[in-house]
Amino acid sequence: MAYQALDEHTVLAYIKSRPAMERVFDKDCRLNAVEIGDGNLNQVFIISATDGSGQSAVIKQALPYLRVAGESWPLTLERMRFETQALLLQNKLSPGRAPEVYDHDSEMALVIMEHLKNHEIMRKPLVARKRFPLFVDHITSFMAQTLFFTSDLYLTGMEKKEMQKVYINPDLCKMQEDFVYTNPYMDSDENKWNPVIDAEVRAVRANGTLKTAIAELKESYMTHAQAVLHGDLHTGSIMLNEEDTKVIDPEFAFYGPIGYDVGAVMENIVLNYLSHFAHTPDRDERESYQAYLLDMMRGVWTEFARKFEALWVDNNRGELPPARYWGFPRGDEAFTEFRRRYIHNILRDAAGHGGCKMLRRMMGIVNVWDITSIGDLEKRAVAERAAIRIGSRWILERDTFQSQEDLADIVLEETKGVRV
Amino acid sequence: MAYQALDEHTVLAYIKSRPAMERVFDKDCRLNAVEIGDGNLNQVFIISATDGSGQSAVIKQALPYLRVAGESWPLTLERMRFETQALLLQNKLSPGRAPEVYDHDSEMALVIMEHLKNHEIMRKPLVARKRFPLFVDHITSFMAQTLFFTSDLYLTGMEKKEMQKVYINPDLCKMQEDFVYTNPYMDSDENKWNPVIDAEVRAVRANGTLKTAIAELKESYMTHAQAVLHGDLHTGSIMLNEEDTKVIDPEFAFYGPIGYDVGAVMENIVLNYLSHFAHTPDRDERESYQAYLLDMMRGVWTEFARKFEALWVDNNRGELPPARYWGFPRGDEAFTEFRRRYIHNILRDAAGHGGCKMLRRMMGIVNVWDITSIGDLEKRAVAERAAIRIGSRWILERDTFQSQEDLADIVLEETKGVRV
Repeated sequence: MAYQALDEHTVLAYIKSRPAMERVFDKDCRLNAVEIGDGNLNQVFIISATDGSGQSAVIKQALPYLRVAGESWPLTLERMRFETQALLLQNKLSPGRAPEVYDHDSEMALVIMEHLKNHEIMRKPLVARKRFPLFVDHITSFMAQTLFFTSDLYLTGMEKKEMQKVYINPDLCKMQEDFVYTNPYMDSDENKWNPVIDAEVRAVRANGTLKTAIAELKESYMTHAQAVLHGDLHTGSIMLNEEDTKVIDPEFAFYGPIGYDVGAVMENIVLNYLSHFAHTPDRDERESYQAYLLDMMRGVWTEFARKFEALWVDNNRGELPPARYWGFPRGDEAFTEFRRRYIHNILRDAAGHGGCKMLRRMMGIVNVWDITSIGDLEKRAVAERAAIRIGSRWILERDTFQSQEDLADIVLEETKGVRV
Repeated sequence: MAYQALDEHTVLAYIKSRPAMERVFDKDCRLNAVEIGDGNLNQVFIISATDGSGQSAVIKQALPYLRVAGESWPLTLERMRFETQALLLQNKLSPGRAPEVYDHDSEMALVIMEHLKNHEIMRKPLVARKRFPLFVDHITSFMAQTLFFTSDLYLTGMEKKEMQKVYINPDLCKMQEDFVYTNPYMDSDENKWNPVIDAEVRAVRANGTLKTAIAELKESYMTHAQAVLHGDLHTGSIMLNEEDTKVIDPEFAFYGPIGYDVGAVMENIVLNYLSHFAHTPDRDERESYQAYLLDMMRGVWTEFARKFEALWVDNNRGELPPARYWGFPRGDEAFTEFRRRYIHNILRDAAGHGGCKMLRRMMGIVNVWDITSIGDLEKRAVAERAAIRIGSRWILERDTFQSQEDLADIVLEETKGVRV
């Protein structure tokens, strides 16, 4: 079937035409479709049986342009291949942490998957101060499993390079190269920012030391092919409830630096932390929830690092280096030190890439709802100024960091004087 | 034509069957073939007209196994594609520095190219203390041009990734991963070393700090996709005379760390330097030539760095980052600092990768003729022990290096006490 963008009517006939969907929907049931896409690149339909049986599925279809920028920004439809293959890979490597894939169609640039009826996008409940006792465990398992098992630490050199061939993702990488590491820090038409922080935005754009460091992190993003990343792991790509956590939208997947994914989770928790200076006026409530969030951020690092290392020790079949390379007196100690240094470098990368992503959310094309939902621009600026200070320090001081406490301390130091 | 390994007879009919060869050989001339391959992976024929006209060409054909290890080590014939495309690329990016390509045939896994009649492989004349006044200029132009123009500093993100797809080179990379970064430092059947240095070899294999550092350099080789490397740029891959320099044998080409190529040239000069403790007994002669070689090594770095930076300043069309990213007050200074740091990191990488390559030549599958040609094993050990000390220090101290003088100083310090 040649590509055509589906709508709420044509999508129903399409679903009925797909044999694989017979295991999801009863053969004769009537279906209803609702388009719910709020992403920038795609349309998303929820398909439900009208008989009250609860049968449902989600179709995600790529549009041939970048939605937020209008039809002037063409993007290849091939990106849905990256999303589909990444979803299948994540289902295999981290069972239960990504939506199940029912069907996919490369011609139509779409994938049909599990409808997460009982989950919500993470940003909103975090603004509402909900707590998710299993989130840290779930997200760190997802990251440790998907990142370790696609790295040279687990794969042979031949296996890794075969996978690398199908994960060269030029279009979507180009978007992050532009929108995370470049355009927010110079004049570019699509940039958006709160006019109240105009001076701070201009200061970032003229800060040579910071911009040199951001360029070095762009080099890392463009050249450091460590593992298959999710590639866009912010709290808008996480759907959860108290019992379960699912990661969605992996269309940016490519071989990149592991710290990019880990830093994305950590920095989004910090942005939510900062939003509570406006969203939660009651001081006790705010401080209690912010302490919860900061512990969550610490836990994301410590649990990720612990699980990643445990997978490495238990599944040391890769070639970086092979296990018997360490077969000499006190070789165990050397292997332990190699793991320590490797994981330590991920922390520093997480701080650097997370810092860039924090800055770009304040002054680039895509801001975050946690903060843009603060109606009062002066109150919003309180959070934004702190984000710029924290992001800048995560970037500039990253090579001095010894543990997650250094990242948390900067959050505390830069919000100590905040008056709300 | 289905693949068949040519011999000195069948190769003549093959040449006559190729229309592209009519511009090299007169239509009716009689040809003669001699197999001269001393490589490990291929056979190489020189085809000459028997009429004294001087018409000639070289055919290089991949064999379906690793020659030095016998038929038990299969390698894909596809590697000739990498050599051919790299030769064509190098001819374009650095005119005159690689042999001209006359014809190529992917089915037969061969390439037909210029016969370098008046050039010799660099190792031998260096042992004979010949001087090559244009070598530093030529080799640094080759490296600066091929490495800069394939990097993200020159290419757009999309262009780089299109090129990256065709330069994923699993088989040949696997060989370097094994033979440069892994097997020489543990028990592996193919390793060869001078029995006189047995204790030094065992000490390297049990040195945890050194092996951790080597594993980190293996990570760099496997993941840091900066530019299309030659990938095997030792003095056996360089053919030259007083007027000209050509780089041959780029079958290991892939997207890797720039310092790998630069370090290969530098460390091979040092190995030759060390060989003269045996090859040149006359002290004045030796010291004069060693001083020449050490200046050559310094020049390889300083001229490479100067030319690479000049190309960058003059051709700043890439996206790491785009030129207008630096368009702010004192942005020029920030761009200068970014270049300085980027090139400085290449020096440190060159020391680390060069150090690994120095060590592996002492204790791995492929040694170097400069040193193996020393008949007296005790005299040979003098050079080998120094190479192990220098290589180890280049690796372990690389993050402290400020300039090429730090690398040269280690060579001087570790050979100060040498008695011959």
